[in-house]
Amino acid sequence: MDQQRRDLLKAGATAALGSLLAAAPGAHAEEAKAGAQISRIPPLAGRTGLRLVTFAAKAGAAHRIGIVLDDGRVLDVGAEAKQRKVKLVFDAGSMLSLVASGDQGLAQVRALAEKAAGAKGLPDVNDVKLLSPIPRPQSNIYAVGWNYLEHFEEGKDVRADKNVAKLPDNPVFFTKGVHTMNGPFDSIPYDASNSTMCDWEAELCLVIGRKGRNIPEDKAMDYVFGYAAYNDTTVRDVQQKRHGGQWFKGKSLDGHGPMGPWLLTAGGLDLDAARIICRVNGVEKQNGSYKQMYFKIPRVIAELSRGLTLEPGDVITTGTPPGVGYSRKPPEFLKPGDVMETEITGLGIIRNTIKAEA
Amino acid sequence: MDQQRRDLLKAGATAALGSLLAAAPGAHAEEAKAGAQISRIPPLAGRTGLRLVTFAAKAGAAHRIGIVLDDGRVLDVGAEAKQRKVKLVFDAGSMLSLVASGDQGLAQVRALAEKAAGAKGLPDVNDVKLLSPIPRPQSNIYAVGWNYLEHFEEGKDVRADKNVAKLPDNPVFFTKGVHTMNGPFDSIPYDASNSTMCDWEAELCLVIGRKGRNIPEDKAMDYVFGYAAYNDTTVRDVQQKRHGGQWFKGKSLDGHGPMGPWLLTAGGLDLDAARIICRVNGVEKQNGSYKQMYFKIPRVIAELSRGLTLEPGDVITTGTPPGVGYSRKPPEFLKPGDVMETEITGLGIIRNTIKAEA
Repeated sequence: MDQQRRDLLKAGATAALGSLLAAAPGAHAEEAKAGAQISRIPPLAGRTGLRLVTFAAKAGAAHRIGIVLDDGRVLDVGAEAKQRKVKLVFDAGSMLSLVASGDQGLAQVRALAEKAAGAKGLPDVNDVKLLSPIPRPQSNIYAVGWNYLEHFEEGKDVRADKNVAKLPDNPVFFTKGVHTMNGPFDSIPYDASNSTMCDWEAELCLVIGRKGRNIPEDKAMDYVFGYAAYNDTTVRDVQQKRHGGQWFKGKSLDGHGPMGPWLLTAGGLDLDAARIICRVNGVEKQNGSYKQMYFKIPRVIAELSRGLTLEPGDVITTGTPPGVGYSRKPPEFLKPGDVMETEITGLGIIRNTIKAEA
Repeated sequence: MDQQRRDLLKAGATAALGSLLAAAPGAHAEEAKAGAQISRIPPLAGRTGLRLVTFAAKAGAAHRIGIVLDDGRVLDVGAEAKQRKVKLVFDAGSMLSLVASGDQGLAQVRALAEKAAGAKGLPDVNDVKLLSPIPRPQSNIYAVGWNYLEHFEEGKDVRADKNVAKLPDNPVFFTKGVHTMNGPFDSIPYDASNSTMCDWEAELCLVIGRKGRNIPEDKAMDYVFGYAAYNDTTVRDVQQKRHGGQWFKGKSLDGHGPMGPWLLTAGGLDLDAARIICRVNGVEKQNGSYKQMYFKIPRVIAELSRGLTLEPGDVITTGTPPGVGYSRKPPEFLKPGDVMETEITGLGIIRNTIKAEA
């Protein structure tokens, strides 16, 4: 934990530590938690929420699906099923397999979780290696390009305004390569010979739970399996200038898309209360709310799925609120050693250090 | 074959039929071939080329890897290996598995092919169902956005010209969704409620054979496993206007990316002699050459892989020559019943009919 402690000390500040120090129910001493990856586990918004993780007992070990309980302990789904002689309908080493197994698989996981409260010998979430909930996506990550209106609330009564007249009719979509996917506490590679304009974009992402095409807006929420914190990390020079205005490559450097700390099943998050926050070295840079999102999730899913089949396990990230580095005056960019923290309130925090490549 | 005959009769014309009627060595009667999917098998440029197909004995049956021999018969790799008691180092039902198995897997396939010349009882390529060589890509298809200069040869001596001064420094990259992938003779769905501006883009695509990142330009050709004909079918209204100028969605409707008819391993194609041709209902619309390609394959691979890991089996399509429907005066678009034919000379032809969705 030394590196994490140093990161936190470096982060130094205040806005971050405030939330970090609020201990979880049943947590260990606050002091210990403050230096841990997961220092606080937000309570669930509903009874149906499950915090699903892809984890390894130690770095490099086989991937397993786990459930993070309210007290911060991790239930190994495969091991628990074996002990209880439950034959799982999915591969207990693959979140994609669980998501694709539909209601039946999720019911099995839920049943195991309900029996687990008194289980003994479970590791603390800080004592396992957390990976991205979906370490190897089955297609590129779908992303929404611009989806927050700063001061939209203030603007809504003056729709004749020219700026308002220019509002987009449809979401902007692009994709991020499969190797952008990164763990919730892993470092993000930095290669100054390729770009020195690495920027943050805190986002709420969702995972699709059912196969669908031409999904109607009023049915779209039935296709959401769960949510996670996500950072659509972007190298601005490559995105904006190097490839003729198409964003793909500047959005797709390896490791430039951390996700986690867990996949919270849809019933566990109160979307209307969720805030999307980014802190860099502990200083808050972005803080928007789902309510300010312009194209809400049902519209995003409906529009994206027009003529395009979505699959269980597909990841869609929903756009970033104002406050990215590129639009600041003067512009700010991430540099090696910086700690980028992405929070979805009511869900959790991921924290990634920028690291120069050897 | 009735539908194919009708398609050909409808296509009617001339430019297409010229090549279609040139029978392969060892072919059946020309009359029969003229109505077949594969009417001519271009000879290989080198001794090392293998025509690898993903096929099913009939529609809906399990996928198998096959080798199309010079005489148009298909060797079932898995069945042949079993008969010869060869233990394959890859899954004989998966082209991705074969490509990922590297030199060892390819050597096994080559050895089977060399012994197959006298084999009896092999089906003709027109009597099996041909799928895309990679029916389910492992990530989005990588695509190059604009990569031919009309009259580049004529312009090269006048580089002070304003147009030449504006030449791009880097390729434009975007992606196509995994469900765009379509078979070489399958229909392309058409939904007028979504778009009525469906356009052709004949392209040469390649498949990556080795994992790599920051691949140097002078080593890039070592990373090419093979080539196929590809059509980067595009709905122009969606591409250009509906999503804020990002091309992804207009490039990513289901089935809008047919590939085939086979994956020709790299040694089998003379790139410098290759022409990229599109015909619609038999009328030639595009006819460019690899020599006219602006960013050649080594540069495309080098630039795409900067900071982005490429994997064996990844598909990169290299851009389309002039002559697309959108840029014609007046503009032309595909409509239900149209037959879109995409040819790479020295490799083969794919043929897809536009079909209104029910």
